[in-house]
Amino acid sequence: MQLAKGVCDIEPSEKILKNKVVDRLRKTFELYGFSPLETPLIERYETLASKFAAGEDSDALRETFTLQDQGKRRLGLRFDLTVPLARFMAMNPTIKMPFKRFEMGPVFRDGPIRAGRVRQFWQCDADIIGNSSMLADAECLAVVAEGFIKLDIPVTIKVNNRKLLSGILTQCNVNKKQDAIIAIDKLDKIGKTGVQKELRERKFTKKQIDAIFTFVSSRATISSLKKKLTDEEALEGIKELEEVFSYLKQMNVKVDFDVALARGLAYYTGTVFEAFANKSKVTSSLSAGGRWDDMIGKFIGDKIVPAVGLSFGIVPIMEVLKEKTKLLEKTKTQVYVLPIKTENECLGIVQQLRKAGINSDISDKSISKGLDYADALGIPYVLIVGKRELAKKKVTLKNMKTGKEELLTVNQVIKKL
Amino acid sequence: MQLAKGVCDIEPSEKILKNKVVDRLRKTFELYGFSPLETPLIERYETLASKFAAGEDSDALRETFTLQDQGKRRLGLRFDLTVPLARFMAMNPTIKMPFKRFEMGPVFRDGPIRAGRVRQFWQCDADIIGNSSMLADAECLAVVAEGFIKLDIPVTIKVNNRKLLSGILTQCNVNKKQDAIIAIDKLDKIGKTGVQKELRERKFTKKQIDAIFTFVSSRATISSLKKKLTDEEALEGIKELEEVFSYLKQMNVKVDFDVALARGLAYYTGTVFEAFANKSKVTSSLSAGGRWDDMIGKFIGDKIVPAVGLSFGIVPIMEVLKEKTKLLEKTKTQVYVLPIKTENECLGIVQQLRKAGINSDISDKSISKGLDYADALGIPYVLIVGKRELAKKKVTLKNMKTGKEELLTVNQVIKKL
Repeated sequence: MQLAKGVCDIEPSEKILKNKVVDRLRKTFELYGFSPLETPLIERYETLASKFAAGEDSDALRETFTLQDQGKRRLGLRFDLTVPLARFMAMNPTIKMPFKRFEMGPVFRDGPIRAGRVRQFWQCDADIIGNSSMLADAECLAVVAEGFIKLDIPVTIKVNNRKLLSGILTQCNVNKKQDAIIAIDKLDKIGKTGVQKELRERKFTKKQIDAIFTFVSSRATISSLKKKLTDEEALEGIKELEEVFSYLKQMNVKVDFDVALARGLAYYTGTVFEAFANKSKVTSSLSAGGRWDDMIGKFIGDKIVPAVGLSFGIVPIMEVLKEKTKLLEKTKTQVYVLPIKTENECLGIVQQLRKAGINSDISDKSISKGLDYADALGIPYVLIVGKRELAKKKVTLKNMKTGKEELLTVNQVIKKL
Repeated sequence: MQLAKGVCDIEPSEKILKNKVVDRLRKTFELYGFSPLETPLIERYETLASKFAAGEDSDALRETFTLQDQGKRRLGLRFDLTVPLARFMAMNPTIKMPFKRFEMGPVFRDGPIRAGRVRQFWQCDADIIGNSSMLADAECLAVVAEGFIKLDIPVTIKVNNRKLLSGILTQCNVNKKQDAIIAIDKLDKIGKTGVQKELRERKFTKKQIDAIFTFVSSRATISSLKKKLTDEEALEGIKELEEVFSYLKQMNVKVDFDVALARGLAYYTGTVFEAFANKSKVTSSLSAGGRWDDMIGKFIGDKIVPAVGLSFGIVPIMEVLKEKTKLLEKTKTQVYVLPIKTENECLGIVQQLRKAGINSDISDKSISKGLDYADALGIPYVLIVGKRELAKKKVTLKNMKTGKEELLTVNQVIKKL
């Protein structure tokens, strides 16, 4: 008996943690006025393959699981939540704008397996469709900040703007911009000399490289760049950044400008951002996003539909949370009721606990096996109920961590827990 | 742009309702000591096709979406949550028993489409694995009852036992039991004459049919049957029912005995039950389940692994809830903040509301368009913020239902909501 390659079971302890992450993110999205959407896992292949989605030659499409239904229609499992959103917008032209939706759910990539890379994984996206104002960009950044407050994970949020980066490269006489951007994005990881080396390998001239580094530095500020820039697109990027930063100040949300932040994906058109955990072994970003004004409009057919959004990485977030709490909860059960020939009375007691909102279970085992079971699952309290205790209208509450036992009435137990 | 055939988007208003159902059921499961499990949507085809699962010739397997990964492995999309559970148990032989897990998620059937039948739908199952005591059956029934209390849906829960039904048929000299059971299960829908007719059509003799109806009646009680039964299996069924009912009495859970209740699925071995909404147009069952002691053991390989479980039907439950509340919530947003040239101040205000836990959004529109938007989404309150109001350190709170406007401080707004 085996799993399909590249997928895994999320067993109770992991799923309890995942539910916690998902719940808090959902709360965050709702707090900021986003509504939930659930799109199907199966899409028509031509939707996924559309040149405004993955495109026939893309990696995403090469990694798409394909299938047929009984009517021999060509289908695929979705590889992200963005294409289904674009398809949904195209099919619902009368929807009220701005449409603020979030979606959390599995996506599929039939790619090579390596550490941290599986074939089914959850994405968690929120987007504001139909709002071109920088208010929307600020809202998305505020959602990211709020999400990590709710998750109790201190992060650094880095912000940049694609127009700025593109304009800088124009001013430096760089044509192969995407190539340069890929190298510049690594400044944090490989440092200035590393990026210089990569730019040389990518055949940029010394003059171009030197020009780039008059702008690109971890110390560059919006105002220091503004003085040096002449390119119109770059100055528009600066203006957008200034607007976003002024909104964020009003919202009391702290983010850092980083001129080297680029984000791999080609479809961003303005604001881009990434969030990283402070003091963690997890170095990949926990959340990322930006403005992508082109895709939906092209999908729908030559309309202008602005969009800005963000994505939380459920898996790296869970990794960070696991660093903090070594021991995962194996169950949400708080009390395990152990009857000693008192099953009938215990059924009444367990229902009383549940009525009071205490997650409870009842044992079908002997005392020693029951205690083993509660211990193995990490249930914090056991309620031992023998006939002698019942005669006194009491029960024994055992704290499984300290071993301490107390003779209490059921009402006292409820009050205590 | 089209959806794949037989699947649908669950748009915000539906998804908000679905989240509510799913949240309450999760709370119920956790209250009763069940833990969450998430199995992958893709399984190896041979797992799904195993004769202890769907079996090569079954309907379920004919309706399985099949696919291949890049390594040419034969895979399928899961058609239920039971086979993945059995596979998980087989792969985790050291897991602590009883293993009480619930899982909610999509399953797939590539079958013909008709009203209420789609190709991707959610199942919501909870099972207790490794507990042969009738306590477990009683717990499952109590979970069903509690779930509907949490959902605020009055239901009638009908209970029967497969051993009883099988034993009755033995006593009536019936061999083709499954055929007879299919007809008897319809007693509620087509009445005694209907069932008699169907039994005649299925070639049962008058003597057999008359014998069956000495036992099968909507008025039959456990004690009335007990007096007439001699078959050993039937008497064991009676004994199990008596035990379950006595436990349920202790737990203060009300269920009805129904000797005609059979449940379609072949794999039940003992207790069976179904829950129906009282006073609703939805006549299909909202929840069902029973004991299925054979499947997992056979899956694992000739072990005995008792199991009892239940399933909630998310879609019919949502239908019943929609009958009660004609107007679905389109958003969870409680306040829509409308700046009149006060964007910067409003950003502070909207953050203040969110900090107080009030789901809030901020408008990028003119007043009239903003009011339209709030109205279209059914947002209950709008906060209108002009410079004149701000000078008085106040804002205008408009109740969108009554139209009433009040001049309040932000703190007063928070207190009011």
